[in-house]
Amino acid sequence: MRDVARDIATAQPPPHTVAMWWLGQASVVLRGADTTIYIDPFLSEYPDRLVPPPFTPATAPPADYVLCTHEHVDHFDPQTLPGMAQTSPHACFIVPLHIVEQATALGISAERVLGTQPDEVVHLGAITLLSVPACHGLKAPPATYDFGFVERAGKNLYRYLGYILEIAGVRIYHAGDTVIYDGLVERLRELEIDVAFLPINGRSYFREQRDIVGNMDEREAADLAAAAGVKLLVPTHYEMFAANQGRPGTLVDYVQASHSRLTCLIPAPGRRFTFMKGDGR
Amino acid sequence: MRDVARDIATAQPPPHTVAMWWLGQASVVLRGADTTIYIDPFLSEYPDRLVPPPFTPATAPPADYVLCTHEHVDHFDPQTLPGMAQTSPHACFIVPLHIVEQATALGISAERVLGTQPDEVVHLGAITLLSVPACHGLKAPPATYDFGFVERAGKNLYRYLGYILEIAGVRIYHAGDTVIYDGLVERLRELEIDVAFLPINGRSYFREQRDIVGNMDEREAADLAAAAGVKLLVPTHYEMFAANQGRPGTLVDYVQASHSRLTCLIPAPGRRFTFMKGDGR
Amino acid sequence: MRDVARDIATAQPPPHTVAMWWLGQASVVLRGADTTIYIDPFLSEYPDRLVPPPFTPATAPPADYVLCTHEHVDHFDPQTLPGMAQTSPHACFIVPLHIVEQATALGISAERVLGTQPDEVVHLGAITLLSVPACHGLKAPPATYDFGFVERAGKNLYRYLGYILEIAGVRIYHAGDTVIYDGLVERLRELEIDVAFLPINGRSYFREQRDIVGNMDEREAADLAAAAGVKLLVPTHYEMFAANQGRPGTLVDYVQASHSRLTCLIPAPGRRFTFMKGDGR
Repeated sequence: MRDVARDIATAQPPPHTVAMWWLGQASVVLRGADTTIYIDPFLSEYPDRLVPPPFTPATAPPADYVLCTHEHVDHFDPQTLPGMAQTSPHACFIVPLHIVEQATALGISAERVLGTQPDEVVHLGAITLLSVPACHGLKAPPATYDFGFVERAGKNLYRYLGYILEIAGVRIYHAGDTVIYDGLVERLRELEIDVAFLPINGRSYFREQRDIVGNMDEREAADLAAAAGVKLLVPTHYEMFAANQGRPGTLVDYVQASHSRLTCLIPAPGRRFTFMKGDGR
Repeated sequence: MRDVARDIATAQPPPHTVAMWWLGQASVVLRGADTTIYIDPFLSEYPDRLVPPPFTPATAPPADYVLCTHEHVDHFDPQTLPGMAQTSPHACFIVPLHIVEQATALGISAERVLGTQPDEVVHLGAITLLSVPACHGLKAPPATYDFGFVERAGKNLYRYLGYILEIAGVRIYHAGDTVIYDGLVERLRELEIDVAFLPINGRSYFREQRDIVGNMDEREAADLAAAAGVKLLVPTHYEMFAANQGRPGTLVDYVQASHSRLTCLIPAPGRRFTFMKGDGR
Repeated sequence: MRDVARDIATAQPPPHTVAMWWLGQASVVLRGADTTIYIDPFLSEYPDRLVPPPFTPATAPPADYVLCTHEHVDHFDPQTLPGMAQTSPHACFIVPLHIVEQATALGISAERVLGTQPDEVVHLGAITLLSVPACHGLKAPPATYDFGFVERAGKNLYRYLGYILEIAGVRIYHAGDTVIYDGLVERLRELEIDVAFLPINGRSYFREQRDIVGNMDEREAADLAAAAGVKLLVPTHYEMFAANQGRPGTLVDYVQASHSRLTCLIPAPGRRFTFMKGDGR
């Protein structure tokens, strides 16, 4: 087996292509336009994880940007971020605005942490970043799915984000943790998303009773991708914890039955795949 | 929607990448190294097909090479090949040796038809082609799966082929119609296959009673790909005819359970996807 | 094929056994203790139904009791109930209290209609009936799942019901349309349910946008049955309308993975199956 870290560190995707690695749960690495971006890196030896991290924070290939969608540990991992801040000394960390302090409290220097909110366009070198709201929940039961507004200085801040990146002309949507909310389809459609990383674990009364807040499920993810005109759907967030799984086969069968124009990729964790601008059109 | 024919005709994959289109059943188009290759084009309005052809033989984007794996109509389509011979006036047609006459009988001039057999290495410009045996059957019941040897000039010719192509450094295996036979795993492993197009419709006594000869099934395809160290598995031959289906969801769930290092892609018919050398390693 | 109507009319289950027929969607017939009970009969030629009714209201075998869980057409069918009132002249109709008038407005005489509410124990000859709340919704979007209280004479009435029947010593729960709500597990466990007919179509944002209110899904139904100690789980409400399906295979796979003590039965519509007291214990 080729070493995943080395593969990320040495990949040289040609123009108009993005190389991608799914590392399990919502953890994704993107490389394109000479830039390496981590989203929701979850590299710690967390108890009960079913998929091991492909490398440790101390051996993670250098990032240019590290994005976290929200403060849950599998997305904003206090055992991962400080190590990455050391091994990626030039990396900038981008988080929802209200958790900037949580990031600096981990020892990441303040000038390296950028808080963002929906509708801000952030230029990261050759990359363009836009965040969109995610609709999730911090605590259950009872399960409440909303935008989790946090008041700061008289403003209501979105607590959960999804990220949209344009890299080498390819538009990538990482949904973070979210159910589907009014307006999401339209926003994604307008932005002409190429690749969507969508959670498929779903919501369940019994998980919510155990404080496991859910997400869209396999069918909703497929319907969202199809309604938004996404070209490639990559399911995430279905395999890391025994109590919180989804089924990619259910996704694929539903797509075949209902959405004949949608391509699904089910990546092996840590294995590179490539999207070229124009794929899936 | 972008026109599939136009997409094929204009695709310019960069070095070390191959652009691919699955057109339903076993029909695949590959483009790389400035070359366009069709395998098993099945573009006719055949009765009861569930997936329409994305274009007609008369509007098919020009091929450099057209490969057929064996003489069954969904792989060697007499309603497709003559039209393609006209619209691709420079294309060379490559078929199992014993059906060269069947090809020329369709009106394709003899100098454009090349018969091949396993273990011959054929250079197609920048492309290298190797064929391997396929183990299938012409008639059921009773179902007999074998290499279907045909005697010609004192030699036994393999009736069914799979093709292995090296394009832009990427190794692609198109299995044609086959069950798994002794030695196939080893041969594929040795050849370091990157992408495998494998049938998943399986064998069934009851289909065989209706003269439907089968192939490997979802689980066998996954096990074959994993055992051979394939990087990307693309299932084929599961959706075209109501009586002869397979389930990509079953494939995906089995891969997740049993082969964590294998990536699966379930393409929408006619939509381009891209493989870059080194993906999946 | 034996005639379904005749099979119901002539079935003579021995003591301690109940014969059951699922007729599609939530429609169930129970026969035991010399009594025939219909729940949510949906026998009309409703547009777009995928499963035909096994007989018409005019040819339905005589009922002793006809139970409807709530006022949605696939549970309280104005094209079914008047015909059944004629062909079952002695039948009593049992509905949520606030829709008694809707039943009599269909021409069923008032003395034959009984309104009920949760926690009332109703004796139907040798049968004991108890209703429990269901948590559903009348209109979406936005999707609101609740008990749908209706005010009558200063009281809040539950709009949606599930029914629990004890027939020949066998306890049967028909959930109607419901998601899972606090207290349901405990109530079912206490009542020592043998057989549970549970919907599995699930909730979906995109269905809710089309005014299709959902139910528990496959996983939740399995978890509910297991948590409540149910002996036999029969999924319902997954096959009647193309836009509102569930997947019994997903249920069965999840039960196998997670609930090894639970038996699932996936009946063919209109085919009899039998539960004998003590089965599944």
